Amino acid sequence: MTLPLAASSDTAGILTDLFLVLLAAKLGDEVFKRIGQPAIIGEILGGVLIGPSVLSWVEVSEVLRVFSELGVVFLLFWVGLETRLSEMRAVGRSAVSVGVAGAVVPFLAGLGAGLALGESTETAVFLGAALAATSAGITAATFIQLGIGRSRPARTVLGAAVVDDILALILLSVAVGMAAEGGVDAAKIGLALAVAVAFVSFVALGGTQLLQRRPRLLHAPRFSESPLLPAVILCLGLAAFAAGIGLAALIGAFLAGMVVAETKDQSSIEEEVRPLYAFFPPFFFAFIGIELDLGALLDAGALALLAGITVLAVAAKLVPAYLSARRLGRREAAIVGVGMTPRGEVGIVVASIGAAAGVVDEELFAVVVGMSILTTLIAPFVLRRLIRQPAGPAG
Amino acid sequence: MTLPLAASSDTAGILTDLFLVLLAAKLGDEVFKRIGQPAIIGEILGGVLIGPSVLSWVEVSEVLRVFSELGVVFLLFWVGLETRLSEMRAVGRSAVSVGVAGAVVPFLAGLGAGLALGESTETAVFLGAALAATSAGITAATFIQLGIGRSRPARTVLGAAVVDDILALILLSVAVGMAAEGGVDAAKIGLALAVAVAFVSFVALGGTQLLQRRPRLLHAPRFSESPLLPAVILCLGLAAFAAGIGLAALIGAFLAGMVVAETKDQSSIEEEVRPLYAFFPPFFFAFIGIELDLGALLDAGALALLAGITVLAVAAKLVPAYLSARRLGRREAAIVGVGMTPRGEVGIVVASIGAAAGVVDEELFAVVVGMSILTTLIAPFVLRRLIRQPAGPAG
Repeated sequence: MTLPLAASSDTAGILTDLFLVLLAAKLGDEVFKRIGQPAIIGEILGGVLIGPSVLSWVEVSEVLRVFSELGVVFLLFWVGLETRLSEMRAVGRSAVSVGVAGAVVPFLAGLGAGLALGESTETAVFLGAALAATSAGITAATFIQLGIGRSRPARTVLGAAVVDDILALILLSVAVGMAAEGGVDAAKIGLALAVAVAFVSFVALGGTQLLQRRPRLLHAPRFSESPLLPAVILCLGLAAFAAGIGLAALIGAFLAGMVVAETKDQSSIEEEVRPLYAFFPPFFFAFIGIELDLGALLDAGALALLAGITVLAVAAKLVPAYLSARRLGRREAAIVGVGMTPRGEVGIVVASIGAAAGVVDEELFAVVVGMSILTTLIAPFVLRRLIRQPAGPAG
Repeated sequence: MTLPLAASSDTAGILTDLFLVLLAAKLGDEVFKRIGQPAIIGEILGGVLIGPSVLSWVEVSEVLRVFSELGVVFLLFWVGLETRLSEMRAVGRSAVSVGVAGAVVPFLAGLGAGLALGESTETAVFLGAALAATSAGITAATFIQLGIGRSRPARTVLGAAVVDDILALILLSVAVGMAAEGGVDAAKIGLALAVAVAFVSFVALGGTQLLQRRPRLLHAPRFSESPLLPAVILCLGLAAFAAGIGLAALIGAFLAGMVVAETKDQSSIEEEVRPLYAFFPPFFFAFIGIELDLGALLDAGALALLAGITVLAVAAKLVPAYLSARRLGRREAAIVGVGMTPRGEVGIVVASIGAAAGVVDEELFAVVVGMSILTTLIAPFVLRRLIRQPAGPAG
């Protein structure tokens, strides 16, 4: 028989890590709230502080990664709970064009930049895929904190992020295929695309219809008086399934939230999910900071490359997204454009897959992580300014 | 720089594990509620079903162990929230005598049985330490589900479990010392004892006094409108500290709950902790089932040993605990006696430390795990009968 893993001694270490990460995130939040700046930046910087860049009190570990993943899962589950399918349909056209333009243009820009820098095609494809990523979590959290979580630009960004993630799945499959076998299996990628589109449509349409027809379905089990656990089980199941077919887990969580929102007493579910939404997401934000290793960026060449790639990453996402959302008016289009720029954890994941495949070297990895974090740090500040403009809140 | 651990691909695997464990636990709960049996047994059997004993869909992993640990942490945090220091003081004398008798007698019984079976002294000491353990989590959950979480016998068992855990810390230190260096460092063990007693007294007395004097302390931070996160950070911090000095993490969580219970609006904190209390503990119960490997027990010798050790474990805990609680009356004393018998995760942890130290072999390990689970499965059934006796609810 297998013995359980070493028991009580590392319990203390893991509980200490969780304690430190939550404490650092909330202290960062506290400081940033007091100086009137975006709270999630405070949480990320709390992670930078205790991570390898400064104090080295905690380092990247599997458990912290899982908590970070659950953080973005519960964040998007919460966003889904506040979203109706009909509202998503209302922004469908803009969302699709923003998502497509916001994935294709940065991919081509990254690919071109990689080739221009003299990298191999395989490496350049990874750089393109990293630039194509969008971190729906960062923008959604910023929108919620600014009180416009349900506004038209917020829903457009969210819908675009779903489209974008499906395209990113394809780009990443292409990148991995090229790195691994030196070729691309079109049939396999077509199948992945079909499965992803089928999953999203089936859950979004079938799931919401089912709950509309049987709004007390989540109340049926006797194991709890409230529908919280059935809803959470659905969320974890769809998140796991989404991750299993190559999408981001947060897409499944978002869809689960949207389905559950159709249940009988949605407001009581929101009340009950709120503590999970308070507990997990700080791990997600702080973990982004913990993944940063400033030491690896401390030379002139890397810094120059970081600056160039970051400017390219912002421009290649902002401009096409802005133009595609132009029909919403200049101000909302600008909010959408900026809202699409954070790469967050998705850019980091793409880079680490490339590193594992041996086509992204240490310097480029550090640069992509730095770019992901910089775009993530910039967006909330700009969004605050755009949204608090004299014109009044958008949406 | 260090690359993050392999990224997106095992995200799916871990989310699937969490999904399956929560689903299995709640399905077990559902079935057992419908047939009128103790729900936590259903959750444990849900874990047995998906674990290595039957379907092998999930296996013991670090992440599941952490979720299990957080399960018992949030379970005891919840119990602490419903407990007042004054109530604990009222049962102090009984609790201390139950705790001492309920740790010393089973230790001597296990030691004696080990020596009689021809085991080495080191191994016999580990067997004694495993029999001395008490799983406060199982009994607390049963008391809560039967609606007597705050009754006198419930508080007595809880107080006894704290005393018992301090003694278990000493016994385990002795056992590890003997296995590692072949000798016992009395000064080191005396220091561990002093630190443990000082920690418990300082937090229980100082913490509650502080919150009594400044009942709005947890409302001070701006990072959340509610005192939930400050309370959860305190819970994780004290749990980590307790684990760090060799106590069970749940002792820290219980003390944290008791301190937080002194805050201004305790009922709103309870409402907010409830979803965390609904989410995490099922992982704890199911994990006990996942740790069981029935295959290792399928021979006559092991089964006979298991039966003998289990009978010894029940008798050596029940009788002294009953006699020490005799002043509460026969019925309550019986509830206390039975409430002390489950060994749960604590017996398993002791056995795995012994296995890691090389003095507990595979068969004895499987027997101790089996004993821990059997005592855990028996107690809730007996408690239900005792508590639902015609005499009416206890306490």
